[in-house]
Amino acid sequence: MRVTKGDDTKSSVLSAALDLASEEGLVGVTIGRLADKVGMSKSGLFAHFASKEKLQIDILEEAKARFVAHVVSPALKARRGEPRVIALFDRWLAWKDVLPGGCVFAAAAVELDDKPGPARDVLVGTQKDWLETLATAIRIAVDEGHFRRDVDVEQLAHEIYLLGYGHLFTSRLLKNDKGEARTRAAFARILASARRPS
Amino acid sequence: MRVTKGDDTKSSVLSAALDLASEEGLVGVTIGRLADKVGMSKSGLFAHFASKEKLQIDILEEAKARFVAHVVSPALKARRGEPRVIALFDRWLAWKDVLPGGCVFAAAAVELDDKPGPARDVLVGTQKDWLETLATAIRIAVDEGHFRRDVDVEQLAHEIYLLGYGHLFTSRLLKNDKGEARTRAAFARILASARRPS
Repeated sequence: MRVTKGDDTKSSVLSAALDLASEEGLVGVTIGRLADKVGMSKSGLFAHFASKEKLQIDILEEAKARFVAHVVSPALKARRGEPRVIALFDRWLAWKDVLPGGCVFAAAAVELDDKPGPARDVLVGTQKDWLETLATAIRIAVDEGHFRRDVDVEQLAHEIYLLGYGHLFTSRLLKNDKGEARTRAAFARILASARRPS
Repeated sequence: MRVTKGDDTKSSVLSAALDLASEEGLVGVTIGRLADKVGMSKSGLFAHFASKEKLQIDILEEAKARFVAHVVSPALKARRGEPRVIALFDRWLAWKDVLPGGCVFAAAAVELDDKPGPARDVLVGTQKDWLETLATAIRIAVDEGHFRRDVDVEQLAHEIYLLGYGHLFTSRLLKNDKGEARTRAAFARILASARRPS
């Protein structure tokens, strides 16, 4: 696919919209505010985003692409097994500093959890993908003999998912110096419980 | 203190404001919307809430009072030691259904984490209080001989805090049937790691 000038513009607008959404939430990304931020007219923006809902979906898709680029893809380069599980968690903790306002999925979750519709569906899809990515990495660690055969893969993925979200969610608020070390200690304990006795 | 008519009105307005904040976030609670909801004039409301910021602080204080009434106070009736730690966690998981839009602290955290000011300070205070409440219950469980003497009390409180937040935060979004059972299994594992070998 050839990238046309229109695609370029849409992509830089989406990038600005994503930054804004991380700071103000999806609801905070109005066409007016976005127009100010990127220096375009409102009517110019309407040509790219047919509706507020479509804009929210595009922002979530952009967030997903960014998450894959910053977290998933680099971690998949780690060796199969426990090293890859560790790399996924490490990159995830760093994710909170990728966008100016922190984790955009966390912001969107609070906004959309009670609002059925296509935007919520996209968000839920991203979360299920991420849980599945964690579960797959854990399953590989079992296959590679790093984790015990009787590990409950879904349970482990759930625990890591909650730990990571809890951290993303509270660390920007509490700014506790020891918070990250404690989160890492909790993660180490989860891994140790899964590891094969050597 | 005698409760005057003014106090009654303010209290029912605050209750409505808290419901609204749980659904729409603190930013969603405008004087106009609140006036619609409680059937008062905007000017009548301005008499009670001098500014938007003061209103946010009052909502957070109301949320704190509600949290103490629904979570902390009932749990403190449980027996000192591990039973009380369990009661605190149980009541906390139920907290997400107390307000129509779920945990208002989670909504406020996403909104205020990057916005220094008195409202953020009040929110951070509520979270430190809650972490301290968990830590105190854990410390008592050590004193009562339920948990090991060498338990890292702050670490354990941090892990329970992240687990609970992760759960509150993701369960309304994912609506996974097995989510709560997995969160409880994770909590049981944390307790088991702290328990004295019998």
